[in-house]
Order: sequence, then structure tokens, then C-alpha cells
Amino acid sequence: MNFSSKLLENAVAEFAKLPGVGQKTALRLVLYLLKQDKAEVEQFSHAVSKLRNEIQFCTTCHNISDKPVCEICSSPKRDHSLICIVEDTRDVMAIENTNQYNGVYHVLGGLISPMDGIGPADLTVDSLVERLTQNGAAEIIFALSATMEGDTTIFYLHKRLKHFNLKLSTIARGIAFGGELEYVDEITLGRSITTRVSYESSLSK
Amino acid sequence: MNFSSKLLENAVAEFAKLPGVGQKTALRLVLYLLKQDKAEVEQFSHAVSKLRNEIQFCTTCHNISDKPVCEICSSPKRDHSLICIVEDTRDVMAIENTNQYNGVYHVLGGLISPMDGIGPADLTVDSLVERLTQNGAAEIIFALSATMEGDTTIFYLHKRLKHFNLKLSTIARGIAFGGELEYVDEITLGRSITTRVSYESSLSK
Repeated sequence: MNFSSKLLENAVAEFAKLPGVGQKTALRLVLYLLKQDKAEVEQFSHAVSKLRNEIQFCTTCHNISDKPVCEICSSPKRDHSLICIVEDTRDVMAIENTNQYNGVYHVLGGLISPMDGIGPADLTVDSLVERLTQNGAAEIIFALSATMEGDTTIFYLHKRLKHFNLKLSTIARGIAFGGELEYVDEITLGRSITTRVSYESSLSK
Repeated sequence: MNFSSKLLENAVAEFAKLPGVGQKTALRLVLYLLKQDKAEVEQFSHAVSKLRNEIQFCTTCHNISDKPVCEICSSPKRDHSLICIVEDTRDVMAIENTNQYNGVYHVLGGLISPMDGIGPADLTVDSLVERLTQNGAAEIIFALSATMEGDTTIFYLHKRLKHFNLKLSTIARGIAFGGELEYVDEITLGRSITTRVSYESSLSK
């Protein structure tokens, strides 16, 4: 692109680094910011800078937090013997929004992916092992994406955590509520037939 | 959404103000920034703040510029008697990328749109009139979007500039090069039949 200003070019280049944002979208966002009040843009820039410099991660579950120990980990109302393993903070938010879970979390910070060069050492696995060694737990729930990376990570963790003799479970996979059979992909449909549950037990949930 | 951190929530709220960015996209962008180096994020935040505080607009054509008079307006190689009227700096970039235009520009900063409360006073129309009064011009080319707002703006400017006795032209509208007839919308196809050009004159261009 043929920029008339170096400042504009720099700002567009910075926005274009964001995932899913190309040059054209970056330019559109930057021109939008240019039309806003100076105070408004300063607030935007300040929020970004403050976020990166002041954010903390909970020392127990590694979720994003404003305090050394997050609200969930420090709450006496939660069941601390039930640990849900998730990839990142978005998954914690998604599960919290269901209001169906009263345990605590452990945020891995990613999934094992040899293709992307991400191994167990890049995740918070050691911290999880230490946490279990110190405090124990009754059950570990794997709530990871139903992808190759998710399955690999579950398999690795399952081997790593076997000696703790905990109950290990994964969230149920199958056809979504409201989903129509003809639009479901074959793998999901095939798996949901082989892992079928008795009608009576499905009613009780 | 159920944020575990106020800092995170603020940053997401700021990103979600951008056009075309919803809460989920904003969260994805913010989490991406959180994974980057502090220096990198500082650079992003700095580029945005610097852009808004230091950017200038060319006093002649109102295009975004780092200097009081932009490179195009100060270039002796350009034809200053040919002024192309465009909506914003993106249009200048698009036309410059064609390498087919050697005149100068005038950036309106928007289009007349009563629906959005944008009238001629919100655009750089007065500055254009003054520019023509002082320096004159041989031809004005309207390169505005082929929309209701674009047509309204051309109509208004045509009335406003009539007494200068300039040649006024608009960029050609019709079927795009490489376009297949069956996919062209009716209005464009209809207009391109009524405004057909002789085969010989189309060859010479």
C-alpha cells in the first residue's frame, strides 16, 4: 500500500499483526481511531498498555487475574477437590457462563501441538502435578477442544497423572442440543452412536 | 461475559468499540496481545497514541500527512490543474496504486448523508471553493462511491462549482474488467447499456 504518512503506516502495521486482521481491515480500524477524540484514543492505548504491564496470573490455576490468587481459587464456596483442566481463560469464561460448575480450574495456557512446536514444558503441567501432590483432588475433568491437539494433551496428562489414582473424566461429546441429525458431521455422529447412553440415564441429567 | 480481571474487561471493552469488532473478537485480540512481549505491546500502544496526537492533514488537499503540505500537493511533477475529489485517504491510496493518475486530490472527509446527519459543512467543501477561487483548475474529477450518498455529493458540488466554468467529470461506471454479464446487478447493467460508448473510442483508451 501507498501510505501518505509514516505514522499511519506504522499504526496500520501494528494492527495488521493481530490475528485475523489484514492490511485493509487494519487501515479501516486506524482511520476509525483517527476520527475519534484524542482522549478516547488515549484511553484505548492506555488500556492496552496497562493490561500487558499490570495483569497477573493466578499462582494456583494460572487464570488471568488482578490478584495473586484469583477469585475462584480463593472462594470458600467452590469445591476445591474438583479441578477442571482447560486451555485458556476463554474456556473458564465459557464454563462459568453455564452456571453448571462449582469446582475450580487449571489453565494449561495452550495444548500440546508438535506441529506448532508446543510441548508439555510450554504448558502449566508441572504446576498441575505439584498442585495435586500438595493438595490432592477427588476428580479431574478434561474440558479441552475435541481436536487432535486436545486429544493428544488429554492422553499425555492421563499418563502423567495416572499415579495419583484420581477419577479422570472428559466432558461429554456428541450432538449439540437443538442440533439436527442431517447437519452433524460423520465423526461426531459415528462417535455419538458408539458412545450411546441408556435413555433412562440421559433423562436423569 | 464473566471476566476474571478488570484490566482484561477494560481492554476488551476498548477493542469492542472498533467497527466490526464484537466482544468475542475483541477478547481474541486482547488475549493475543497478552501473549506477546511487553515491548511489542508497548510499541502497539505507542503507535496508536502517537498517530492520533501527531498526525496532520495537508492544508491544501486535507489528505493525511506528516507535513503541513503533503507530498502530492508539494510535488512539481504532478498536474495541479487536475483535481480529483475523493471521500477519504483510502481512495487516494487506491487511485495512487493504479499509477494512472498524475493530478492532485481533494479529500472531502466523508459524503453528504442526511440520514447520518452529515451535511456540506462537515466536509471540506468550503476549502475546495477557496482553493479554486485562489488557484483555479482546468478539470475536476469526481471519484466518489456509486451510492446514493456519492451521487448526492456530486450533485451538490456540481451546483456549488458551476460558476467556476470548469470541466467537471466523474469516473466511468460500468461492468468491471473480467466481470461476467450474468453476475452483474441490473442497475449497473442497465446503466452501462444506456451509457454505452462507441467501440472505436473504447479501443483508444
